[in-house]
Amino acid sequence: MATYQSIVAYDGTGFQGFQRLAEGQRTVQGVLEDALRRVGWTGTSLLAAGRTDAGVHARGQVISFGLTWRHDAETLTRALNANLPADVSVRQTAEAPEGFHPRFSARRRTYRYAILADAWPDPLAERVAWRLWPEPDLELMSAEALAMLGRHDFGAFGQAPIPGGHTVREVFEARWERQERGQAFQVQADAFLHHMVRRLVSAMVAVGLGRWPVGTMAALVADPSRRWEEKPAPAHGLCLETVEY
Amino acid sequence: MATYQSIVAYDGTGFQGFQRLAEGQRTVQGVLEDALRRVGWTGTSLLAAGRTDAGVHARGQVISFGLTWRHDAETLTRALNANLPADVSVRQTAEAPEGFHPRFSARRRTYRYAILADAWPDPLAERVAWRLWPEPDLELMSAEALAMLGRHDFGAFGQAPIPGGHTVREVFEARWERQERGQAFQVQADAFLHHMVRRLVSAMVAVGLGRWPVGTMAALVADPSRRWEEKPAPAHGLCLETVEY
Repeated sequence: MATYQSIVAYDGTGFQGFQRLAEGQRTVQGVLEDALRRVGWTGTSLLAAGRTDAGVHARGQVISFGLTWRHDAETLTRALNANLPADVSVRQTAEAPEGFHPRFSARRRTYRYAILADAWPDPLAERVAWRLWPEPDLELMSAEALAMLGRHDFGAFGQAPIPGGHTVREVFEARWERQERGQAFQVQADAFLHHMVRRLVSAMVAVGLGRWPVGTMAALVADPSRRWEEKPAPAHGLCLETVEY
Repeated sequence: MATYQSIVAYDGTGFQGFQRLAEGQRTVQGVLEDALRRVGWTGTSLLAAGRTDAGVHARGQVISFGLTWRHDAETLTRALNANLPADVSVRQTAEAPEGFHPRFSARRRTYRYAILADAWPDPLAERVAWRLWPEPDLELMSAEALAMLGRHDFGAFGQAPIPGGHTVREVFEARWERQERGQAFQVQADAFLHHMVRRLVSAMVAVGLGRWPVGTMAALVADPSRRWEEKPAPAHGLCLETVEY
């Protein structure tokens, strides 16, 4: 038996998140494990880089699993895709290095959050973006984003994943860019707290719309005992882009 | 009572096409008429610019309907959207000019067909594009597209919509362009035969993949008694972009 790692993409709309839940709830993990079983997998739980929330999309989720497989990795990719529904796909498969763990071995994760600036609903664009009108100010949000670069205690934006864990994370990239019909925020860090990206976006948008003052992000990053209590930005604007090892 | 025209967008994935069918079949027309009834519409059938096939999307479908409405057009847009599901939206509403008919008054229609060049499934991109691998040759397809410009008998690509009707159409624009991860074909004509765009794309892709010789489009346009018998390109790559009056 060898350990394999796969890059997985999904449209999160039809899922109650990544992590397998109770019977009858459709999850990305559940659908992937069903496909794995059909190619001979006998494990009890696959491993994944991140547990995305209900509605969050992925272009570069990473999973791993042990499997006895007699053909090459490309054939395994094809066999898995033949057993997956249209809203999940395996983009690439390779044998994993010794000791590989998709979550604990990960060094950097990149997420992207898309905003659609439009006064009216747009079925094709809104599936993967948060529609806002009026449009938040891109310059203001870009200035706020700078405050999160580097190593900070992000306790204002989420809790430690395990009791006794800390909320310090290192952010390598945090920038807004204009898109054809809106804006997108790309953020890369060593790891993220639960709901952290959606809360960061919520805070920057509040500044971009003039509801919160310039410097809000710097104040929250400087004092983790303050909490960003506003509603996180909606899940369907968020996509897990890549995980680096 | 006034006549209104609305620009309508939809994600065609969950519909059995635009035109209302038997009970229990979900159509864009059916969903729009349900929303219209909830704002006081008492008509029996709305009018539309084009009857898109099952799975085809729209950014600029045009409908019209008679309605007694006491508020402004923007309020009507808002009221309709409040009664529409997430995969259909009204983008704009205005009072229609005297004698307006969304189909018969239309002078030009523009469709766009997207190709995703990728060896593996991609749930987020494939919803609105035909995935092909290897990628068809863009230069070859662009050269084929030139042959359809102007006034031609497109009988090779579809039948007359009514008995005794003709199959001559005038094409004003027909060009391929590179997209981030593939290609898109944009075509504008006075009108289109049923399945015509999907058959045009199918023929150009056959040339672009080297299965049919250069000059295939010119030969088909020159002799409408020949039929393009290959399978039309899949519906989900096609989008009705705009209708001009």
